[in-house]
Amino acid sequence: MKREDFDDWSRARLAEVEAALDRWVPAQAPAGLGDAMRYGVLDGGKRLRPLLALAAAEAVGADGGEAALRAACEACAVELIHAYSLIHDDMPCMDDDVLRRGKPTVHVRYGQAQAMLAGDAMQALAFEVLTPESDVVPAALQAGLCRLLARAAGQDGMAGGQAIDLASIGRPLDERALCDMHRRKTGALLQASVLMGAACGDASEAARAALADYGAAIGLAFQVVDDILDATQGSDQLGKTAGKDAERDKPTYVTVLGLASAQRHAQALCEQAHAALARSRLHKAAGLGMLADKVVQRDS
Amino acid sequence: MKREDFDDWSRARLAEVEAALDRWVPAQAPAGLGDAMRYGVLDGGKRLRPLLALAAAEAVGADGGEAALRAACEACAVELIHAYSLIHDDMPCMDDDVLRRGKPTVHVRYGQAQAMLAGDAMQALAFEVLTPESDVVPAALQAGLCRLLARAAGQDGMAGGQAIDLASIGRPLDERALCDMHRRKTGALLQASVLMGAACGDASEAARAALADYGAAIGLAFQVVDDILDATQGSDQLGKTAGKDAERDKPTYVTVLGLASAQRHAQALCEQAHAALARSRLHKAAGLGMLADKVVQRDS
Repeated sequence: MKREDFDDWSRARLAEVEAALDRWVPAQAPAGLGDAMRYGVLDGGKRLRPLLALAAAEAVGADGGEAALRAACEACAVELIHAYSLIHDDMPCMDDDVLRRGKPTVHVRYGQAQAMLAGDAMQALAFEVLTPESDVVPAALQAGLCRLLARAAGQDGMAGGQAIDLASIGRPLDERALCDMHRRKTGALLQASVLMGAACGDASEAARAALADYGAAIGLAFQVVDDILDATQGSDQLGKTAGKDAERDKPTYVTVLGLASAQRHAQALCEQAHAALARSRLHKAAGLGMLADKVVQRDS
Repeated sequence: MKREDFDDWSRARLAEVEAALDRWVPAQAPAGLGDAMRYGVLDGGKRLRPLLALAAAEAVGADGGEAALRAACEACAVELIHAYSLIHDDMPCMDDDVLRRGKPTVHVRYGQAQAMLAGDAMQALAFEVLTPESDVVPAALQAGLCRLLARAAGQDGMAGGQAIDLASIGRPLDERALCDMHRRKTGALLQASVLMGAACGDASEAARAALADYGAAIGLAFQVVDDILDATQGSDQLGKTAGKDAERDKPTYVTVLGLASAQRHAQALCEQAHAALARSRLHKAAGLGMLADKVVQRDS
């Protein structure tokens, strides 16, 4: 796949995801809740998780007709979980951040109570999106997708990682503990995005295992790069407050490994991701390859 | 069913629910998150929602073997959603309450950040509990249960009701608006508990519709009684801070209808619930009948 083709593919998919989110997240939810939810999820973000789900679906041959509709449900569900986690993460009792995706955070705009409720409702909505009443998504697949997403979001995944993150402020972590934290906090949902996409089509057990390895590698790479960007870029570039980790005395890959070593680590993880794709023997995995490169080469 | 038989049934089911929650909510979740989750859900509460799910399952003949295991999953799932909503509801940015189930609230005990994460993780866990990898719960049923629960918990249900609740502080609501708020805030999850239990067995379309009416009636009755208790009982009796609604200038059934009229309204809803059970023509619905009485006659 050429870079231009990938960019075209990516643009088209992003437009679809945006339209689907716009349909799913209702403006008419009561008492301003819908507005806060829409503010928190529409119109911003790199949409990496939806793109991973869609690229994985394509890799296993689920890229047309109903299979594409299924993949779109997954893409929305993973983005809703991600967006809810950002809203809660930004709240004063957590990271206390006022800037996200270049805009005031949800609690700054709508108040803390509405922000908490918007996040709560978005988590529920993610599971509603995965379980449409129509049989666009077969019931057995719906159940499997809910299971994958619930585990990735819960105490063994994202929420557990955030608890470790909170507890690590001001405490030294070694690389192993840092890796464990990020595999949960960021990696679990990124990997789940890949696996949920892959669940939409037919893939051998070996191909699925390889995609799980791919998801784990880019999940961790994403966080290593996040730490590098937080230390090297400004807030304007990132669309969120830069330098927060250092300010809050949080251990990061940069503080634990040093900048140069963190950069080499990100590159090595990217190579692991490509090796896993090669092992998968899937013919249409080029999109996933491009996304791996994008995760590591991004500058915001 | 005699009152003593119901009490025996109820005690036995509560012990099972407690044991199942104890298994599902892991102490070993990282960085104290498991402790906060367990503190928030174990060892307290009336467990009305689990009892409704179990009684509804029995009413449709799903009261032995695997069907009972399925109903136990549902019972845990609805209680996890309820318990998470209490944790978030008690936080300073919402109701700012320090006492719940006779103990300090989760954020008082573990801090606000951990309380928010514990609630978030409990919502995810509810969906994990509904989607076991074994086929104890058939996949098609798992999907349907996730759909029911997600809708009851989300913007059209509980979270939406809480948003209306927040927006209503200091503003007069008429009875219709108050009813709409409570149908969402409390009623949706209570009704879903009944419908999820009923989904475990075979019931005619008419019986299911009647159970939905039963669930709607007791869902609203529960809140009317809650408003009455908040105005008439002390904190010791309730295990939570009494008189909060008046203090925060929130409209309640007591402020809108007056105490005597609110009491009559609760009784009328209880009668509606019994009439719906009679319409259901289910032979084993006595447990649901007892629970309707309990909702209205409770003193805490």
